[in-house]
Amino acid sequence: MTLYHIDFEPVGRRGDCADDQSILAAARKLSVDLVSICGGLGSCGRCQVQIVAGQVSPLTADEEIALTPREIEQGYRLACQTFPLSDVKVHVPAQSLTAPQRTQVEGLDVAAQPDPPVCHFDVQIAPPTLHSPIADDRSLWNALAEQHQVQPGIVDFRVAQILSPRLRDLNWSVRVGLRGNEIVALGSPAQRLLGFAADIGTTKIAGYLVDLETGQTLASQGLMNPQISYGEDVVTRIDLARRSSADAERMRQLLTDALNQMLDGLCTQVHVQSEQIVEAVIVGNTAIHHLFLRLPVIQLGLAPYIPAMRAALDIKAHDLGLRLAPGAYVHLLPNIAGYAGADHVAMILATRIAETDGIILALDIGTNTEICLNHRGRLASVSCASGPAFEGAHIQFGMRAAPGAIEHMRMTQDQIEYQIIGGGVPVGICGSGLLDVVAQLRLNGVLNRHGQMQNHPRVRETNGVREFVLVSEQQRPGQKAIVVSQLDVRELQLAKGAIRAGIQVLVESEGIAEQDIGRVIIAGAFGTFIDVASAVTIGMLPTLPRDCFSQVGNAAGTGARLALISREQRARAQAIAERAGYIELASVPGFQRKFAQATFLG
Amino acid sequence: MTLYHIDFEPVGRRGDCADDQSILAAARKLSVDLVSICGGLGSCGRCQVQIVAGQVSPLTADEEIALTPREIEQGYRLACQTFPLSDVKVHVPAQSLTAPQRTQVEGLDVAAQPDPPVCHFDVQIAPPTLHSPIADDRSLWNALAEQHQVQPGIVDFRVAQILSPRLRDLNWSVRVGLRGNEIVALGSPAQRLLGFAADIGTTKIAGYLVDLETGQTLASQGLMNPQISYGEDVVTRIDLARRSSADAERMRQLLTDALNQMLDGLCTQVHVQSEQIVEAVIVGNTAIHHLFLRLPVIQLGLAPYIPAMRAALDIKAHDLGLRLAPGAYVHLLPNIAGYAGADHVAMILATRIAETDGIILALDIGTNTEICLNHRGRLASVSCASGPAFEGAHIQFGMRAAPGAIEHMRMTQDQIEYQIIGGGVPVGICGSGLLDVVAQLRLNGVLNRHGQMQNHPRVRETNGVREFVLVSEQQRPGQKAIVVSQLDVRELQLAKGAIRAGIQVLVESEGIAEQDIGRVIIAGAFGTFIDVASAVTIGMLPTLPRDCFSQVGNAAGTGARLALISREQRARAQAIAERAGYIELASVPGFQRKFAQATFLG
Repeated sequence: MTLYHIDFEPVGRRGDCADDQSILAAARKLSVDLVSICGGLGSCGRCQVQIVAGQVSPLTADEEIALTPREIEQGYRLACQTFPLSDVKVHVPAQSLTAPQRTQVEGLDVAAQPDPPVCHFDVQIAPPTLHSPIADDRSLWNALAEQHQVQPGIVDFRVAQILSPRLRDLNWSVRVGLRGNEIVALGSPAQRLLGFAADIGTTKIAGYLVDLETGQTLASQGLMNPQISYGEDVVTRIDLARRSSADAERMRQLLTDALNQMLDGLCTQVHVQSEQIVEAVIVGNTAIHHLFLRLPVIQLGLAPYIPAMRAALDIKAHDLGLRLAPGAYVHLLPNIAGYAGADHVAMILATRIAETDGIILALDIGTNTEICLNHRGRLASVSCASGPAFEGAHIQFGMRAAPGAIEHMRMTQDQIEYQIIGGGVPVGICGSGLLDVVAQLRLNGVLNRHGQMQNHPRVRETNGVREFVLVSEQQRPGQKAIVVSQLDVRELQLAKGAIRAGIQVLVESEGIAEQDIGRVIIAGAFGTFIDVASAVTIGMLPTLPRDCFSQVGNAAGTGARLALISREQRARAQAIAERAGYIELASVPGFQRKFAQATFLG
Repeated sequence: MTLYHIDFEPVGRRGDCADDQSILAAARKLSVDLVSICGGLGSCGRCQVQIVAGQVSPLTADEEIALTPREIEQGYRLACQTFPLSDVKVHVPAQSLTAPQRTQVEGLDVAAQPDPPVCHFDVQIAPPTLHSPIADDRSLWNALAEQHQVQPGIVDFRVAQILSPRLRDLNWSVRVGLRGNEIVALGSPAQRLLGFAADIGTTKIAGYLVDLETGQTLASQGLMNPQISYGEDVVTRIDLARRSSADAERMRQLLTDALNQMLDGLCTQVHVQSEQIVEAVIVGNTAIHHLFLRLPVIQLGLAPYIPAMRAALDIKAHDLGLRLAPGAYVHLLPNIAGYAGADHVAMILATRIAETDGIILALDIGTNTEICLNHRGRLASVSCASGPAFEGAHIQFGMRAAPGAIEHMRMTQDQIEYQIIGGGVPVGICGSGLLDVVAQLRLNGVLNRHGQMQNHPRVRETNGVREFVLVSEQQRPGQKAIVVSQLDVRELQLAKGAIRAGIQVLVESEGIAEQDIGRVIIAGAFGTFIDVASAVTIGMLPTLPRDCFSQVGNAAGTGARLALISREQRARAQAIAERAGYIELASVPGFQRKFAQATFLG
């Protein structure tokens, strides 16, 4: 029997799989909840997974029945029929999971007067005759001028391609979606005009379907970013994209497919057609933005980390492969720098820190943590390479915030209490859980200021590495204990040190002290679930009164929605990107020392 | 032995082919000059033809070697290896012909001050550094602002996709092609900015490569419109397109391929890259325009013949599949009506009749003949269904103006002289030849006013139809005599009657007489080669002093070039389309009687 390493993405669970063990069995052992109705007989066809890397056993006859040729070509397999022949990386599509993964769509309210870029006009058109053989575009503009005083403009090429039959099918009574002077959609007068906003994170995507005229969010959905299969962090993906344009194209296609799937889901939720979506706003970090648009990334991946495009962009949805109204535009908010992207601009927009007089810090914590300081109207940003520890990567029992993850922990003397996502038995530890564990160990003296693990009844040594037993073998019969090792603590120290050093650089560059900060806004999916006290305890965040901190959820998603429904908000986003100063940490003298200092536990 | 009908396109030669006769043999019999280096052994692979309709013998082993799988899939065969099993229609690609077909690219001079829509700016950019990590788009706009006072605008999406590597490859010294506020091209400072103009006719395409800054035409090329394989006239093609979107797509693809092939040829002629072409102007009749853009044509094919789009359009070359600069636009001049398209506007623009005070008539004669009357500043147009007789279709020995065609003829008593395109032996009669023949027969009393053929030594009867022997069997040993039959004369009468009736409708609608016309401008490929005296003799054109007439060649091509190099000319074209009245002949009371009258020979 040979043991191989197996990595389930995007759930982020990793472990061993014997060569005589099916991928379904490995998934169960690692508590990845794959659907399996037939119980592994190969007959229900539900436990589909995609083999992203590594060798596996040949296709079985059952699989040839259950999978389409296209799926087979794309590496799809039935987990119950497939055995590893090497280390493997497995992508688990959302529909193959029994319990959905937690993604973050909630955020600040969308508090802006709707002033959408696309407006509707209902017109009644006189049909042409032999004596008045007026061209269809002309008839439409005539009716718009007469009935709404709209001056003739242009018709989107793809709207032009459907104009004539559509006018006739709708009996010459239509609703026109007008963007500036361009007709981007043409439907029946009964159809509402909708918008789509998305925040594409490195690991998660949050999408929103919005009524453009009321500004109301009709539906929202979270999804994992399927590009994770190509790399946990954007640096890996950039590297891959610049080495292989085929991989770059595949990553783009994966993302586009995911967005289209999300669009379908959102439209189904509220019983509308995707053709009613006449405008979209998409935000993401600069790398995601570039990979999505197939902009070159080689100059982004190497110092001095230059974005190809900083300006806001309006690109036809058609050119991006998104299924919206035929002439719909996708608006991409501007980027600030190579590691401060449109999502950062959206976060600044949604938190309104740019409009406040005080000293405010706003952070979006993740694999990269972008931080913006507003010092009496001056905006400055940094981006910290906080690494994937918060997502559970490089942590022995780490996992994403999925069912079974320990998300919070308290320790009173030797007594340990924890909270598990979805209840049930613990499977691993997610980022917020790890933060709590390290804070509690520090408070209880199990860790010293340098993060070194001290002697304690729950501390033991395995293969020369100290580890703190969170859930013992006795508590998980037949399974390994869940531990936090000295190495895990080091990983967290690096992550939190990067953030704290970034805050210090910002504060020092403005000639102020951390204690001058009046408010700290913590945005982002991860930031929503962390215990702020723990973050302060380990020194990730400055020691400030508890009521200085607020956790606002997905602010980038809110910013995207603001820019979707309001041209004024879009202009503000533009102004933010123009105003925001950016400090490249690598260019700050003595930054490495500052960073090393910041890794100490508070 | 069975005889099948064979039709060689686009050369327009038709005849019989026995089932034991190869297509190469049939081509030779019908004087279609197919290349055949090996003499029909199947080894040289040069006699490639495309079987468009009908059944033929199976593929031979030689063909499997000579043809690519894609060619085989597209119906390509070696003419020497292929035998008919039914009536067949064969497309002969230009490269399989020994002598090129005559197409018309010459026209009026391009007399306008260049004022091109795309201008160039050379900039030298400061490369980014870690201390000044400016995004590439921003660096470019900064340089444009500092060095040329150009305000920041937008970057075409596909230019954005190459921006970063291009700046670095060119060592930060670039030539920017700016169209309004949009960057559409980015090249080295040594590269001239070029434009492409094309007049796409129902049967022929004329293309021009133009230096945008000097306005000079650098190269021109004529090509047959490959859509001919799908139908001689636009009505057939519209009908096909509305029945089958696959056929519509194939017709579009054929045209796009032909234009790309033309672009390659033009660029090779003057040693430039197609990426230097930063703007194109394309004109064609409304049906060609719609088929090229994949606009719906069903409403165009049925009364009241409504264009989907009348307005001028700016469409990205990328969206049309044309290989120009990444952000280049294709400008399509406006249409006037379903049967008066952008080519008519271009013709009016080039002939400048709209700017003249007198009474001027301009005609573009072809399968459809568009006529515009300028009556002291008022423009009115008609379109006449003159039919394909001028192109040699429906004429027993008719053919297009290709080598071997009798293009002119004079008769003195019984003495006949004719002029053959390319010299050599006569093969058939093209449109201008037929016009001369009918005029000469009328002048010599062989035809009466009604077009009836009278007794004459050269007139005989075959299968109950009278025919005039132009080239006897004795003059073409082993081949049939070349004759003009009573039926051929009728076809020409219909064609010329349609044109004359159109002129009469225009004149009457303005309350003037034909004799008031001060100038007649005859445009178009066919119009260039006709004998005006013959056209007047048969009553196709009004009887006016000879010096009233001028033949200007491809005026639509000239108009396209004017609109290419000058924004002012483009605005004029727009004004022409707005001003031009259009009379739908089908709506004119008593038109049928007028038409019948007009078929009489003068």
